[in-house]
Amino acid sequence: MGYGKVDELAINTIRTLAVDATFQANSGHPGAPMGMAPVAHVLFNKFMTFNPKNPDWLNRDRFVLSNGHGCMLQYAILHLFGYGVSMDALKHFRQVDSITPGHPEAHDTPGIEVTTGPLGQGFANAVGLAIAQQHTAGVFNKPNFELINNHTYCFFGDGCSMEGIASEAASLAGHLQLGNLICIYDDNHISIDGDTKVSFTEDVTKRFEAYGWHTQHVEDGDSDLESIEAAIQKAKDVKDKPSVIKLTTTIGFGSKLQGTGGVHGNPLKADDVKQVKEKFGFDPEKTFVVPQEVYDAYHKHASEGAAAEEEWNKLLEKYSGEHKDGASELKRRLSRKLPEGWQNKLPVYKPSDPAVATRKLSESVLEAIHEAVPELLSGSADLTGSNNTRWKNAVDFQPPSTGLGDWSGRYLRYGVREHGMAGIMNGMSAYGTIIPAGGTFLNFVSYAAGSVRLSSLSHQRVIYIATHDSIGLGEDGPTHQPIETLAHFRALPNMMVWRPADGNETSAAYYMALTSHETPSIMALTRQNLPQLEASTLANGNKGGYVALEDKEAKITLVSTGSEVSICLEAVKYLKDNKSIAARVVSMPCTEVFDAQSKDYKLSVIPDGIPTMSVEVMSTLGWEKYSHEQFGLNRFGASGPYKDVYKKFEFTPEGISKRAVLTIDFYKDVKPLRSPINRAFTQLI
Amino acid sequence: MGYGKVDELAINTIRTLAVDATFQANSGHPGAPMGMAPVAHVLFNKFMTFNPKNPDWLNRDRFVLSNGHGCMLQYAILHLFGYGVSMDALKHFRQVDSITPGHPEAHDTPGIEVTTGPLGQGFANAVGLAIAQQHTAGVFNKPNFELINNHTYCFFGDGCSMEGIASEAASLAGHLQLGNLICIYDDNHISIDGDTKVSFTEDVTKRFEAYGWHTQHVEDGDSDLESIEAAIQKAKDVKDKPSVIKLTTTIGFGSKLQGTGGVHGNPLKADDVKQVKEKFGFDPEKTFVVPQEVYDAYHKHASEGAAAEEEWNKLLEKYSGEHKDGASELKRRLSRKLPEGWQNKLPVYKPSDPAVATRKLSESVLEAIHEAVPELLSGSADLTGSNNTRWKNAVDFQPPSTGLGDWSGRYLRYGVREHGMAGIMNGMSAYGTIIPAGGTFLNFVSYAAGSVRLSSLSHQRVIYIATHDSIGLGEDGPTHQPIETLAHFRALPNMMVWRPADGNETSAAYYMALTSHETPSIMALTRQNLPQLEASTLANGNKGGYVALEDKEAKITLVSTGSEVSICLEAVKYLKDNKSIAARVVSMPCTEVFDAQSKDYKLSVIPDGIPTMSVEVMSTLGWEKYSHEQFGLNRFGASGPYKDVYKKFEFTPEGISKRAVLTIDFYKDVKPLRSPINRAFTQLI
Ligand SMILES: [Ca+2]
Ligand SMILES: [Ca+2]
Repeated sequence: MGYGKVDELAINTIRTLAVDATFQANSGHPGAPMGMAPVAHVLFNKFMTFNPKNPDWLNRDRFVLSNGHGCMLQYAILHLFGYGVSMDALKHFRQVDSITPGHPEAHDTPGIEVTTGPLGQGFANAVGLAIAQQHTAGVFNKPNFELINNHTYCFFGDGCSMEGIASEAASLAGHLQLGNLICIYDDNHISIDGDTKVSFTEDVTKRFEAYGWHTQHVEDGDSDLESIEAAIQKAKDVKDKPSVIKLTTTIGFGSKLQGTGGVHGNPLKADDVKQVKEKFGFDPEKTFVVPQEVYDAYHKHASEGAAAEEEWNKLLEKYSGEHKDGASELKRRLSRKLPEGWQNKLPVYKPSDPAVATRKLSESVLEAIHEAVPELLSGSADLTGSNNTRWKNAVDFQPPSTGLGDWSGRYLRYGVREHGMAGIMNGMSAYGTIIPAGGTFLNFVSYAAGSVRLSSLSHQRVIYIATHDSIGLGEDGPTHQPIETLAHFRALPNMMVWRPADGNETSAAYYMALTSHETPSIMALTRQNLPQLEASTLANGNKGGYVALEDKEAKITLVSTGSEVSICLEAVKYLKDNKSIAARVVSMPCTEVFDAQSKDYKLSVIPDGIPTMSVEVMSTLGWEKYSHEQFGLNRFGASGPYKDVYKKFEFTPEGISKRAVLTIDFYKDVKPLRSPINRAFTQLI
Repeated sequence: MGYGKVDELAINTIRTLAVDATFQANSGHPGAPMGMAPVAHVLFNKFMTFNPKNPDWLNRDRFVLSNGHGCMLQYAILHLFGYGVSMDALKHFRQVDSITPGHPEAHDTPGIEVTTGPLGQGFANAVGLAIAQQHTAGVFNKPNFELINNHTYCFFGDGCSMEGIASEAASLAGHLQLGNLICIYDDNHISIDGDTKVSFTEDVTKRFEAYGWHTQHVEDGDSDLESIEAAIQKAKDVKDKPSVIKLTTTIGFGSKLQGTGGVHGNPLKADDVKQVKEKFGFDPEKTFVVPQEVYDAYHKHASEGAAAEEEWNKLLEKYSGEHKDGASELKRRLSRKLPEGWQNKLPVYKPSDPAVATRKLSESVLEAIHEAVPELLSGSADLTGSNNTRWKNAVDFQPPSTGLGDWSGRYLRYGVREHGMAGIMNGMSAYGTIIPAGGTFLNFVSYAAGSVRLSSLSHQRVIYIATHDSIGLGEDGPTHQPIETLAHFRALPNMMVWRPADGNETSAAYYMALTSHETPSIMALTRQNLPQLEASTLANGNKGGYVALEDKEAKITLVSTGSEVSICLEAVKYLKDNKSIAARVVSMPCTEVFDAQSKDYKLSVIPDGIPTMSVEVMSTLGWEKYSHEQFGLNRFGASGPYKDVYKKFEFTPEGISKRAVLTIDFYKDVKPLRSPINRAFTQLI
């Protein structure tokens, strides 16, 4: 304890940097940085261990700014400690191609752990980071080797508190007794609509108590550094519960508009900037000022962090001697490369093998590879038996005291918390030692859309196991049958949407999902059984699209996915037998991966000269990219046995054939009839 | 009080109907109906007032089954009371084209208030129904005329409890002090993964207390009918808080598997069906049995409901005499028709009017029409100043005791609770007297996707005011810039996605949104200013797409939306001046509405003979339906001033022109060059 002039100076430096950067950008949120500078100063200097020269050091403490709009707080701190965030970067806050975007993006900026801003996400990420630490410790720590023991700290505001995703994650964190998680709630009574009393009058602390958290309140977050420090220390001492500290602060501390919504999302006015600097003893004519003693103090703590990493590296070296396998396994995981030969465990199927639902085939993949890929941590949002996400002898990730599992367990029961699950998985993935896979029905991946988007944006290798992928789920009906869902996620950049048609395609989907280090995947899987296809191989599946049935005489290409591919193959027979028309079939389990193939290959799959018709039992939106005509379902489904539902909507060999004939006829006079693969120009990427 | 043999018989009749229906369908969830039959029996018979012969009676008590998978409970009860749910309908549970789908759908089944099943939705709907009651009472009740005083009752289970949407809605309901809302939590300790102790160990009652709810616990929900009744009565007596009753029950009560997950989502086995019936004194050989005394008792209560409605109709008649305007206004609202001439209030613009952001133009619409359309109730998820959702002299919908507004207020501050807001709006719309409109950023409508989908599926006239609709929001950056969002919602059936280009199109969007009684709308609105277009009129906008600039010599059609339409118009000039190429422009504010126009009209907009290129600053997915080539953004955006961001991605007259030239060249040899409007076959609707 004991705070003095330099501490005050440092805090005010952070504040004025936030004021200057938002003023210069004429955009941004000065309020939160000004209000939370004191707690950030205390937390980073007194508690957090990290090495700015190596932001990837595994055992660093993690920090998450869930109220990501306050990112100038984080950029200022990263700069002061000597991360790769230069003063020039601060001066280019919120400018095109700078590393200081309007909200923190993990992929862009050294020292940013997770991408936040969409409210509540960071909170769930923090829970995921804490789970990952606990699990990694559970797997790798050995007697006398507490290799992994970092804490996760998270700041969050009123906005995050109100978001359902944060409630879900907080409830699960309480259940999991995550003693390594310390969250600080910026209780500043202000959100964008003004005083929180207009819509947010619950007792937040009591709610967290109900979740099983340890709770504290620091009443003067603006200047009582000792109490802030004591509260964080007490939270660290509580080992069997996550902790929340309600910290009452003044938003925009120092501004003329402090304590009001006026300072939340707009830069200060010029005269206010001036008076703030005068109030804090800064030269009002100068901008982006960092007193040398502040740099010195922060660099000193950075050096301590570098020394801590050096110590840890020695520990790891010693560990390597006594636990050779563990050490090399840990290093392998950090490289993101999978174990040599793991892919040989992937199940392969012959056409004569029985028909099986792809959700079951997915289970077979997990069963087959879970030993070979120990970083895979599966789970489900309370649909384990339906999603088939659990291998037989899986151990639950649970607090040992529950008797239900242990920290090294690799199966996580997320509860009915899809959005929380997805946000938590993003955090787990960001930790660096885990590949998380989580299940729900495809239709309810939509509940998690906010986090799924951030899986893509922040390049997390997260796997969404999305079963019951269409009207093929049958009786549950329209409330559960996806229509728009695949179009939604196919439109999301850097997302692989897989809809495998059989066993080999399912194995291919997992192969690509696990080996694509920077891309998440959604596995859309059937409830109903599907036959094993003739042309389906791992190699074909890995291309995202391939010829499932070739015929040089074909008058039409049918391009399809998942459960409809085998119906298209039946339609070919029907067309031949009843109309004497030859047709060919393309299986397209993943358009994103198909798009990445060479143009020659793509044209060999969807050739010029004959029309292509897509067949998929949901929205046709987007299929125009790969086909001349589209057969789909641009309406909601129906509740009934799935075969009846397919029949109602004519997804039968007859129904497909009827439309194929119309398509052939419609295009017979168009010359040249180009494949839709041919484009006038390529998109910017 | 005082329960006897007939009560027991009725409860067991409900249980055996649920057992028989799920057994016959070989699908469905018997557990919840068997466990909740007692509370349903007490609630419907002792507390609820309704008339099965007129399920639309305004002042009926509302019932929501948020754990919608238990819908056989609801179907059985509707049948017993004499709603239009026949025994035959029960026997066709979960069959194609029956009115007893796998989850309750309001649009299909008389007596079902809202469409539930996706967990947590019903809970939020119930909050919306309670808000709507409170507001409608605030507007229409007069001294001595308590015209509107119904209660809303909701059953919810562990799954709903875990969902973030329910947390959001519960927090807001507590803030709003909704004394007319009584929710019964089926505390049966079972979810799909088994015992809730695996993931759900929070103190639910304490959490609701933290939200400001009145809480009770009934320990024996299986047979203690007196305590159930007493608790509901006590909850009714609490007028200034919503109430939750934690009701401990045994899932699948009576089954051999009672109290286990085995009875949650699967029909009972044949021998279990038999023993259940024997245990309850039913003939094990008979199915779908309703003892006459049960019908008699339920029909008696139904008659009381019919009499209550008759009384109420007399009250309304008397009210009509003393409050003529109120009465006719109420009747008009129930007809769903807007007041005569309201549309004359819609703002219209001349091309010479200044450039204005469509979010501001939306505000002008609300300002102009809010008096003429009194059923419009606006709000925002804590982005009031950014969404521009509040007219100047709006009164907040708030408990009068807060001093912040009153029950008749027409502005709802939802807090940062997008999913909750959407679910609440669905409930408000379902009440019948309100058209809810709620704002957030377009990117965060995705947080609400679960509810938005149900707006469409259940035909609710809900308006999503979605501002900051693209990279045009600028500095907030990729975390906030929608890319996939319009594709997502355009793929959703029965949803109008509007992206107006100027003032008249914004007015048109509101005209269509308000007059489409069974279709929700999303208004994608800009942050940045847009000029008023020459050809834009209300009539043109109402067609969803129209020619914004005609040129008979045109070599290409540029089809665009919102902020890009005016850039396309500049591109036409650029093409003419620099390449001597004539081009025409189509503005397409709403593809869903354009699709509904005649083929002749559509072909006049997107004609044969010349290629069409779409221009929209987000995912191109789906634009292939209206264009030969697509210029869009199939990657994430960038943080910076919006003009810089547009330039970075070449959404400039030059960038558009460059691609237009490539497109013209690419299609010059294709004959016939058909408009994409021409299709080989039409989709099933
Ligand atoms: Ca706040
Ligand atoms: Ca339950």
